[in-house]
Amino acid sequence: MPTREAIRYWFKDLQNQICAKLEQADGGGKFISDAWERPGGGGGVSRVLAGGNVIEKGGVNFSAVWGKTPEATVKLLKLSSAGAVAPDFFATGVSIVLHPHNPMVPIIHMNVRYFEILPLSKNDKGTWWFGGGIDLTPHYVDEGDARYFHQQLKKVCDAHHPSYYKQFKEWADDYFFIRHRNETRGVGGIFFDYLKAEGALTKDARFEFVKSVGSAFADIYTYFMKKNHTLPFDERHKQWQYLRRGRYVEFNLVWDRGTKFGLETDGRTESILMSLPPQANWEYNHRPAAGSEEEKTITLLTKGIDWLGKIDARSGADA
Amino acid sequence: MPTREAIRYWFKDLQNQICAKLEQADGGGKFISDAWERPGGGGGVSRVLAGGNVIEKGGVNFSAVWGKTPEATVKLLKLSSAGAVAPDFFATGVSIVLHPHNPMVPIIHMNVRYFEILPLSKNDKGTWWFGGGIDLTPHYVDEGDARYFHQQLKKVCDAHHPSYYKQFKEWADDYFFIRHRNETRGVGGIFFDYLKAEGALTKDARFEFVKSVGSAFADIYTYFMKKNHTLPFDERHKQWQYLRRGRYVEFNLVWDRGTKFGLETDGRTESILMSLPPQANWEYNHRPAAGSEEEKTITLLTKGIDWLGKIDARSGADA
Repeated sequence: MPTREAIRYWFKDLQNQICAKLEQADGGGKFISDAWERPGGGGGVSRVLAGGNVIEKGGVNFSAVWGKTPEATVKLLKLSSAGAVAPDFFATGVSIVLHPHNPMVPIIHMNVRYFEILPLSKNDKGTWWFGGGIDLTPHYVDEGDARYFHQQLKKVCDAHHPSYYKQFKEWADDYFFIRHRNETRGVGGIFFDYLKAEGALTKDARFEFVKSVGSAFADIYTYFMKKNHTLPFDERHKQWQYLRRGRYVEFNLVWDRGTKFGLETDGRTESILMSLPPQANWEYNHRPAAGSEEEKTITLLTKGIDWLGKIDARSGADA
Repeated sequence: MPTREAIRYWFKDLQNQICAKLEQADGGGKFISDAWERPGGGGGVSRVLAGGNVIEKGGVNFSAVWGKTPEATVKLLKLSSAGAVAPDFFATGVSIVLHPHNPMVPIIHMNVRYFEILPLSKNDKGTWWFGGGIDLTPHYVDEGDARYFHQQLKKVCDAHHPSYYKQFKEWADDYFFIRHRNETRGVGGIFFDYLKAEGALTKDARFEFVKSVGSAFADIYTYFMKKNHTLPFDERHKQWQYLRRGRYVEFNLVWDRGTKFGLETDGRTESILMSLPPQANWEYNHRPAAGSEEEKTITLLTKGIDWLGKIDARSGADA
């Protein structure tokens, strides 16, 4: 059974591997490294790339933090009855958001995390779970790209459990949803949380799945970087990109549980808000022109699209 | 005693008067008018100015809405016990945010509002209250400007009650606070809520105060527009303005109760988010240069500054 130390070291190594692959694909930008400590226990390393060839602003965060479980977490998870001593927690994870220059390259987000509530006494076993996900936010939805993305995620999921992809794809649709806009953030992906031991899905098996998700990230995103970063664009596309980044800001600050929780429990602000874009714009009641690419994108920002079936049905191509 | 209709008409008229004065001071921009209806009852008129001479993007919202009290409001105000029928509500207000082009002109926000919970039965009296405030968010804090601003607010307050200014100035410091940055949003102002009848402070007296706040707004802001819009600035100042606007976005989307409540209860998104700037930027861990104007501004974004006493003490000028 993987120990918390083993998980932590694997995540730390993942951060390095991903940064190396992103730098290589970018061909210009270099990640700076910013280590920080958490007053209550633990800390992290934020790695940030600004002004690359492909990536305009991006961050790859690693953290491993521990200590007394914050009151908000105790309440959220209904961990202890009133007056009881709060247990200790341990949490580690890698979290990534990348904002590209070229509006034809999508924004991507990935997170893998492990959470543990330590036993309060000999009779208490404590508890642990894994969570994470990957989702893609194109400024312009390209159905082929969305399909490729979901195909890769399905492959990752299918290698671990036949129901993972369907379940976690639906969870992503529900989670990455900008309720006040009635829009999904992008074309979704997979999202999962509270993955505990359950029959054949042991702690080892859960960790192997999370490792596969983390390991798949760099190849998936560098594929889009390489394929799309030379596509032509003009000022109109940039303006649209800035508006879509505004929506990304809205999702992260209004609805994203991790961001809200971090900011409300005195997490490290600069690491949490690394996800925000270099520039975002807002226009009152912007409506894309009828028949435009921008309007088409809006119609595709909806829950429940079967990206694999959608295009297969149309083209008759490989399933 | 002012009826809800009287308050509503006064607010609607205030919107028109303010827009006319702002257009005159801007000398170029014109407010467009966008009327909307609320499915559950009532509606509003959003007036929006984009690309003026002085104002880059601004909105002056009026709304008057009513119907069944949203579940979230019932809970927030602890209005009824479980299972009881939710009462009807009526709410009307004017809300303004203006983002100027020139970084030397401050961002301003003003809101006046009236809320009423209608009686559920003959034995029930229902309840009502006024709320509102004005606060100033300079990109560069000019102590003379901050002092002038607070002097004007103190005059408005003092004409109605000797404790208003002190009480509402402290409330603004607490309310317009970006907790995750440990910074105030700007130089504060006044904030008040739940102003009910209380001794000599009758409903008439409360309404007269709110009217004074609303009526004071246009002169206060056009003073800054006229005085500062020709001040010189360069690209460095613009970049700082974009970063400060990023903080404004963070406050509004993470902490502002009105914004959060509106978005969570299916308010009209475009009217709620009219407060967002035309462009905002984020840089990882930005730190202003030592001794710079930008650094000075940061040191002044703190609670509890007595803007009136601060400068009086230094200059010995009029109190």
